[in-house]
Amino acid sequence: MKVPEKLIELIKSEECFTIASHENPEGDALGSSIALALALRSIEKDVRVFNKDGVPEIYSFLPRMDLVETEIERVRLKDSVLLILDCNDLERVGLKDVECKKIAVIDHHQKSEVRNQNSRSRPLLWIEPESPAAGLMVYNLLKRLELKIDRDMAVNLYTAIAVDTGTFRYENTTPETLRVAADLIDAGVNPGELSQRLYESWTVNRFRLLVSVLNTLEIWKLRAVVAITTVTLKMFKETGTDAEDTENFSSFPRMIQSVDISAMFREVEVGYWKASLRSKGRFNVAAIASYFGGGGHKNAAGYKVQGDIKEIKKMFLEAVQKSL
Amino acid sequence: MKVPEKLIELIKSEECFTIASHENPEGDALGSSIALALALRSIEKDVRVFNKDGVPEIYSFLPRMDLVETEIERVRLKDSVLLILDCNDLERVGLKDVECKKIAVIDHHQKSEVRNQNSRSRPLLWIEPESPAAGLMVYNLLKRLELKIDRDMAVNLYTAIAVDTGTFRYENTTPETLRVAADLIDAGVNPGELSQRLYESWTVNRFRLLVSVLNTLEIWKLRAVVAITTVTLKMFKETGTDAEDTENFSSFPRMIQSVDISAMFREVEVGYWKASLRSKGRFNVAAIASYFGGGGHKNAAGYKVQGDIKEIKKMFLEAVQKSL
Repeated sequence: MKVPEKLIELIKSEECFTIASHENPEGDALGSSIALALALRSIEKDVRVFNKDGVPEIYSFLPRMDLVETEIERVRLKDSVLLILDCNDLERVGLKDVECKKIAVIDHHQKSEVRNQNSRSRPLLWIEPESPAAGLMVYNLLKRLELKIDRDMAVNLYTAIAVDTGTFRYENTTPETLRVAADLIDAGVNPGELSQRLYESWTVNRFRLLVSVLNTLEIWKLRAVVAITTVTLKMFKETGTDAEDTENFSSFPRMIQSVDISAMFREVEVGYWKASLRSKGRFNVAAIASYFGGGGHKNAAGYKVQGDIKEIKKMFLEAVQKSL
Repeated sequence: MKVPEKLIELIKSEECFTIASHENPEGDALGSSIALALALRSIEKDVRVFNKDGVPEIYSFLPRMDLVETEIERVRLKDSVLLILDCNDLERVGLKDVECKKIAVIDHHQKSEVRNQNSRSRPLLWIEPESPAAGLMVYNLLKRLELKIDRDMAVNLYTAIAVDTGTFRYENTTPETLRVAADLIDAGVNPGELSQRLYESWTVNRFRLLVSVLNTLEIWKLRAVVAITTVTLKMFKETGTDAEDTENFSSFPRMIQSVDISAMFREVEVGYWKASLRSKGRFNVAAIASYFGGGGHKNAAGYKVQGDIKEIKKMFLEAVQKSL
């Protein structure tokens, strides 16, 4: 992974940075943002971190998560280099038409569109679709900048990498991923404690929601075997939970050997749904999501859709058939 | 981790080895045994692998698992150096009083007793309680012997390490563990495929049984927070599953942060139940099991009981209160 020289120059030459990541942030968006902010602050840069949705409860253990702000002044942005992490779509950041000094993107998702007529120059894009996590890119950036990675940064980066690799279980786990994780343990991460935070810190309500969702399981044997689960607003109400609590739910049906693709449809508001697609690698779910104007990676993608859930599922299954 | 010189000398000087591991073997016992056998065969040693219980179905993906024999001739053992892996108790190997040339133990469990009046010299013990897996010790041994680790050996060693660290989630995950895993990926392991073998090889029926079981979840807030789930004969019938399919089910409610103890009651035959108790460490479930004539360890115990399930649960909860 080669860090672009222009990014190094930009960081060295500028003083004021705003780091932002995508809506509904998960561990990679948050961990890489906070770690980069801490590192740039360690060399006296003026850095703020923005995420329009803030830090979900399950990530409240991240050291210095208090840095993440859900509002940011336009005047601040105007003087900032805007660093977009784990995302390359300004709309998903919630900063579509802001004016800023320069935009730089650090992302491992396939490029969608980085358009902003108000930034004073073309965005600097560092996109590594082969990188398992934005956190791994930030690690490389910090190494390239010769910055010391302290424990707080390490926990944030480890979380970023762990979340996007299923803690080293997904096929995106590279030798480099593991060697970097080893360095981060050396820098102070406690991997057992972190796993408890990530995997054994559920509320009773969240667990009850999971059970409700698993009760909706449908298995479709098409050219791919597809598992579909559904989360309705009613389920959230009955269990006292919200959208945040569904993080990673779409992975559960992957436990079934025959399942190639797991899709979860979550009701966002009455008649509006968000699809989360997970593949075990044989099928490209980003291609399926793109039928509906969505995006993502080969193994994890999503889209938004409006209508009747029966019809939505039918269209999804048709798209699966077409895409294979 | 320092490999004993005497072990190196023993392996270099001897020609005939029998590798053995404990009964009911899991990934570490099997993976470290097969990897060591392949490595010693690569330098023309005469090596056989013994495990009295053989390779369980879920480990049938291990390369060269066909090497594992469930019977071995006494005359063969007589001429062998017996290498005991992932175990230091000859009784658990099923070779308590055999005659052999020499015994060497490669293990990461606290020493119990390695007694054998029929071996011609005292056993050579290499015990590293700090090592997360016997597989990691075998890796170090092969490096020390300067043997090339091929793909088949690497998959066996990675499995060994993965199984004993929860694939790098448990607190025994050290930086060395991750660096060795990285080397093993370089040697040909596909970590995603391996995780699929270990964690995503469920039948649809087993998954449906899990969902049924999770639907029975009760949470009791006593001095400890107790999660209770129930599996009935009816559920087995409805999902086309059996008792084997419930392996590890009692761990699921551990995901709930507040839960201290998870208890699963499984109907063995009409009116007969088996309780599986799991603790996160704060409470001793062996003490609870002993009230009912059962046993086990502090964090995993069980007992058998006859009667009405409502009454059985009530008695269990009373025992929890008394034991704390």
